[in-house]
Amino acid sequence: MSSPSRFDVLISEVGPRDGLQSISTTMSTAHKCAWIDGLVASGVQEIEVGSFVSPKLLPQMADAAQIVTHAIQHSGVTVMALVPNIKGAEAAMRAGVHKITLPVSASPAHSMANVRKTHQQMVEEVRAIAQLRDDLAPQVHIEAGISTAFGCTLQGLVPEDDVIALSVACVAAGANESGLSDTTGMANPAQVKRLFTRLRSELGDHAGAAHMHNTRGLGLANCLAAYEAGVRTFDASQAGLGGCPYAPGASGNVVTEDLVFMFEAMGIRTGIDIERLLAARNALAAGLPGEALYGMLPPAGLPKGFVPHPYSTH
Amino acid sequence: MSSPSRFDVLISEVGPRDGLQSISTTMSTAHKCAWIDGLVASGVQEIEVGSFVSPKLLPQMADAAQIVTHAIQHSGVTVMALVPNIKGAEAAMRAGVHKITLPVSASPAHSMANVRKTHQQMVEEVRAIAQLRDDLAPQVHIEAGISTAFGCTLQGLVPEDDVIALSVACVAAGANESGLSDTTGMANPAQVKRLFTRLRSELGDHAGAAHMHNTRGLGLANCLAAYEAGVRTFDASQAGLGGCPYAPGASGNVVTEDLVFMFEAMGIRTGIDIERLLAARNALAAGLPGEALYGMLPPAGLPKGFVPHPYSTH
Repeated sequence: MSSPSRFDVLISEVGPRDGLQSISTTMSTAHKCAWIDGLVASGVQEIEVGSFVSPKLLPQMADAAQIVTHAIQHSGVTVMALVPNIKGAEAAMRAGVHKITLPVSASPAHSMANVRKTHQQMVEEVRAIAQLRDDLAPQVHIEAGISTAFGCTLQGLVPEDDVIALSVACVAAGANESGLSDTTGMANPAQVKRLFTRLRSELGDHAGAAHMHNTRGLGLANCLAAYEAGVRTFDASQAGLGGCPYAPGASGNVVTEDLVFMFEAMGIRTGIDIERLLAARNALAAGLPGEALYGMLPPAGLPKGFVPHPYSTH
Repeated sequence: MSSPSRFDVLISEVGPRDGLQSISTTMSTAHKCAWIDGLVASGVQEIEVGSFVSPKLLPQMADAAQIVTHAIQHSGVTVMALVPNIKGAEAAMRAGVHKITLPVSASPAHSMANVRKTHQQMVEEVRAIAQLRDDLAPQVHIEAGISTAFGCTLQGLVPEDDVIALSVACVAAGANESGLSDTTGMANPAQVKRLFTRLRSELGDHAGAAHMHNTRGLGLANCLAAYEAGVRTFDASQAGLGGCPYAPGASGNVVTEDLVFMFEAMGIRTGIDIERLLAARNALAAGLPGEALYGMLPPAGLPKGFVPHPYSTH
């Protein structure tokens, strides 16, 4: 599900979850649906549409079930949601998601701040969620996203052995895949290549997505390094919305528009029509008037003479 | 001179030329000198300090000879200047530069717009400058910087054969080296790797620097690709100042701060102390009040737990 079938790489759009939960404004349900429709129309094949958490904690995500109900009407699109625990996982599965992603922090300090759980408790949560999935919705795919995998704003360096051990434990506990997240924007290309090479050697096809941030400008270089290490699924957020509200100073997902442009320019097929992706950005802007939108491609435009792949989307 | 001796890569700071000539404000001579002093104090080993062009065309560069006189007082620093023609080359050599760089555009349309010369005329200019150098200042190093090497905002695609042929012709005409410039911010990492691999295979040690722009966000990814192709000299501009006034829409040199951070984080030694580099940014800001400064590292700061290489500079 996370390995691209028809194209060379899979861009997993996380803006409707990671982006929207990181800003104070709450986008209306109708605007969220319109934005998701725009993303699907551009050819995006996987979307993290919301987070099944307490609406007291994240009121921006209170309509997650409604958004899932809307998004799953699109055929050929994998609809994902983030869940922090088994309660959220059950709600997500009952809402009809195709895939859930559970953040598991490699930094004990970040894990306690984010979900008040130790590594071992999180691995047990993965195991319980996988058992629930087997009973309730066996078709649902579970991803353990190892956050702070490249460093932590609270703890600083995170030992690479800990990151790999935690990924392996999550897959052993029943996750279908485990990806690595640069939650805090501290990764560098050498580290990304080294860690993903090791992850893929340990987990094979259970090695998951690269989730990179652009906090220090290295987002695309890190995606390039991950690609060279064999990664084929990349999280990105339209207009660079998002970050992590519990990792201070760690803002800025990789911008989907810029990432798709990089790959398409290199001849690596994403399946996404860039012009339509830029149109989806307008839907995002309409739902968040006054919010700062990021990205270098959108103001610069496609280069003269650039011939995008001809995608016939939907 | 352009191949780093003591460190792994050479960062060639082009801000005092490329940056300052691209903005309408003219920085005072005293502020330029203070900025250059700050760059040198951080460990920068090569600086393009000005452009020897008509002050009517670029009044920002009118004090180029004074700046050279100041900069060459620093030992261990290669002082470069841009020259558009033999007249500028003679002035630069008489001022005492160590190295001159001559932009030679791979796009005929851009070449005519920029210097009103054809490829053949530019190669003849290189030959004349090399002969003058042999007579006047044989220690001066000549770089032919192939501009619009990755695409042109006027012409669109630029054939790779043309780029390589022009580089080879410039070296045959007497240039010590030939680098490639993404003047227009149209390069992608696959193209960068392909072209620099080919350039190095044709020219060996006469293959020069990668001069990348961040117009569409790919600047650092392109530098990473160039590094992987064997390039060891990288042009960058502090605070991302600069672009090309004759290639519309092509703004944004790679930001020195972000590039140095990328390499240092990867364990690739630049010789530049990041904290002191950030201090030099303050000297730049003091000389250009109100001017927009770019870069992701400066606002984010160094990651927690990041241990820079200990450089004892000057």
